[in-house]
Amino acid sequence: MKVEVYKILEKVRAQKPVVHHLTNWVTIYDCANVVKVLGASPVMAHAKEEVAEMARIASALVLNIGTLTVDFVEAMKIAAFSANEKGIPVILDVCGAGATELRDKKSFELLDTVKINIIKGNASEIARISGEKVKTKGVDSAQVNADLLSLAKKLAVNRKCAVVITGKEDMITNGEKHFIVKNGHPMMAHVVGTGCMAASVIGAFSAVEKDLVLAAASALVCFEVAAECAAKISKGPATFKEKMFDCLYNLDKKTIKAMQKVEFFLNKT
Amino acid sequence: MKVEVYKILEKVRAQKPVVHHLTNWVTIYDCANVVKVLGASPVMAHAKEEVAEMARIASALVLNIGTLTVDFVEAMKIAAFSANEKGIPVILDVCGAGATELRDKKSFELLDTVKINIIKGNASEIARISGEKVKTKGVDSAQVNADLLSLAKKLAVNRKCAVVITGKEDMITNGEKHFIVKNGHPMMAHVVGTGCMAASVIGAFSAVEKDLVLAAASALVCFEVAAECAAKISKGPATFKEKMFDCLYNLDKKTIKAMQKVEFFLNKT
Amino acid sequence: MKVEVYKILEKVRAQKPVVHHLTNWVTIYDCANVVKVLGASPVMAHAKEEVAEMARIASALVLNIGTLTVDFVEAMKIAAFSANEKGIPVILDVCGAGATELRDKKSFELLDTVKINIIKGNASEIARISGEKVKTKGVDSAQVNADLLSLAKKLAVNRKCAVVITGKEDMITNGEKHFIVKNGHPMMAHVVGTGCMAASVIGAFSAVEKDLVLAAASALVCFEVAAECAAKISKGPATFKEKMFDCLYNLDKKTIKAMQKVEFFLNKT
Repeated sequence: MKVEVYKILEKVRAQKPVVHHLTNWVTIYDCANVVKVLGASPVMAHAKEEVAEMARIASALVLNIGTLTVDFVEAMKIAAFSANEKGIPVILDVCGAGATELRDKKSFELLDTVKINIIKGNASEIARISGEKVKTKGVDSAQVNADLLSLAKKLAVNRKCAVVITGKEDMITNGEKHFIVKNGHPMMAHVVGTGCMAASVIGAFSAVEKDLVLAAASALVCFEVAAECAAKISKGPATFKEKMFDCLYNLDKKTIKAMQKVEFFLNKT
Repeated sequence: MKVEVYKILEKVRAQKPVVHHLTNWVTIYDCANVVKVLGASPVMAHAKEEVAEMARIASALVLNIGTLTVDFVEAMKIAAFSANEKGIPVILDVCGAGATELRDKKSFELLDTVKINIIKGNASEIARISGEKVKTKGVDSAQVNADLLSLAKKLAVNRKCAVVITGKEDMITNGEKHFIVKNGHPMMAHVVGTGCMAASVIGAFSAVEKDLVLAAASALVCFEVAAECAAKISKGPATFKEKMFDCLYNLDKKTIKAMQKVEFFLNKT
Repeated sequence: MKVEVYKILEKVRAQKPVVHHLTNWVTIYDCANVVKVLGASPVMAHAKEEVAEMARIASALVLNIGTLTVDFVEAMKIAAFSANEKGIPVILDVCGAGATELRDKKSFELLDTVKINIIKGNASEIARISGEKVKTKGVDSAQVNADLLSLAKKLAVNRKCAVVITGKEDMITNGEKHFIVKNGHPMMAHVVGTGCMAASVIGAFSAVEKDLVLAAASALVCFEVAAECAAKISKGPATFKEKMFDCLYNLDKKTIKAMQKVEFFLNKT
């Protein structure tokens, strides 16, 4: 099956969905900007008095616990509850899960309190959220000795949601349908925020495509094809990042079709 | 009348005014940096214990409600009260007004509590602050079916201040004197934060020029001429943004004079 | 004596230390990113419930009061206390000291409450922390009429720590051993955040080298050699900043050896 990635990017550009974020203070600009260069409309708002209303304007909600506080997570719950009521997808980036008790506790609290439609993290973060005893080293991924796809599937089934593990190969699954995305470039690991940005791109794509595993896989393909194009014309991580935004803005059907490396498969029955 | 834009930029570069900001967490870096590349001195400080003192060091105060909270607006009031006492201009960017009740309520609260010297927003934000029933889609401008200049004039007269509406054509008015700035480039709409940065540039210019409509118009001309120069040498929104900063830093009298598109007129009596 | 700067950079790249930050909201991204391009692992976390645990994962802690609040400084104390217990170096950037009473008070409070291993600031900030009556203009350095090295030495001896004064010539001292770094480029003053980034680079270097004056001096050499390389290929402050990151990422032994301008001397006895 040839996955029609480009069609979803076209929908994002045509529909210009509002993507509401409650995210971290480190990469907040890049999360907003990556949504903007896609042609969509980012909005960042975290006051507990307005998040419910802002989420109702939006077509997707992206939560990221990168610089969480207790109060901030309370605002996330209010926003997510509103998003759930409206029926728009909620993406949770479990940034730094496994690094501290607070991150684990608050991730589980969010998963238990509101409906999360897509859980996204790197290997060690998702392993931790799946209940594995992984100690992560800050916000960068640690080694995980497990079959990642099985982990992701199990978590997806348990939480009745889509799960995205980013890494050299990205795994996207809802427990039944699975995508493996093999695009991307090692330079992405030398830039702060590529993981956060990936969640924002997934947010924009899931705003226009109801099949959330397809949306997430397509989002990652586009983002990572842009990264590959950028790597070809960069001499270091900072020019790489800039070119990645430019390439995402200029990304066309032909380039995506020629470069996409995505596999789709269903559970064997 | 030929507006002498360059002279005000020269004053900014010579006097290096401190521009105090209480702004949003998304574009805070770019707001600081745009002031810096102009040759002025940005300072970002929001603790309620220090904002009054910091505003007293400054020559202009820029407020932006992009990621407001109730407490943050209280700090804005303290800073603005101090700025009012010192007699330095206060610029309010009503970022996202119309998107939520909180934004409207807090914008009006600021306007009613302290003296705002320049209100700045896009068409739908200013329409909302003028009392029109506009529902904005997040922080990007929505369609406004109204004569924008009349709206701006009315607001300026009611609030006894200057009003700036940014857009394809920028309108700057205090109800008696009006400027229309026709510089700028469509690429500005593909980068997060150009509106916020415009407010910061206005802050720097109003710090050195008492005629606030002239200051604001000149600020927008410089910022947008830089954008036009940047667009000529960019291949996407990220390189465009970088070049915009470079071009603003390198902006000279000759370029401004050759490229400025600004009209000035007075109310007919 | 030839200072072996490159060896410490190699250690950073090999050991990839986690550098925990509680820093300001303006330059937080650049602080994280400069640590990342060095090959180390930045983590930004400020919730009082998790900072102690996060500091225990880390190999250095960087504190920066650029956008301080009372609560934020409380979290800094918790993090620093944890870092002290673990024995990892704590770097304090007294950003904006001298601008407001709050900044002075909180800087002294931190210095009196927890062990700070490296105090870093520009001339007027360090003068203020040394007890001189300097009024700074926001976060940019003011003129200081004093022998800076004597000031730094006195502060180092009083506080039993290393002191770093950045400027055209950087001074690094623990009261006995002194380094003067003469690298750097005037363009650094036209970019917001170079001072904050310098503190983060010092954090990464001090994570792998126990001789903290050597670590700090080596950090500044690398950062500023990268700046010099970047200046050669830039046309303005924004491209300069981008190239500075690229150059730091690509920095090699040969370049450092050829370009480093660092003097070392001991107190005469």
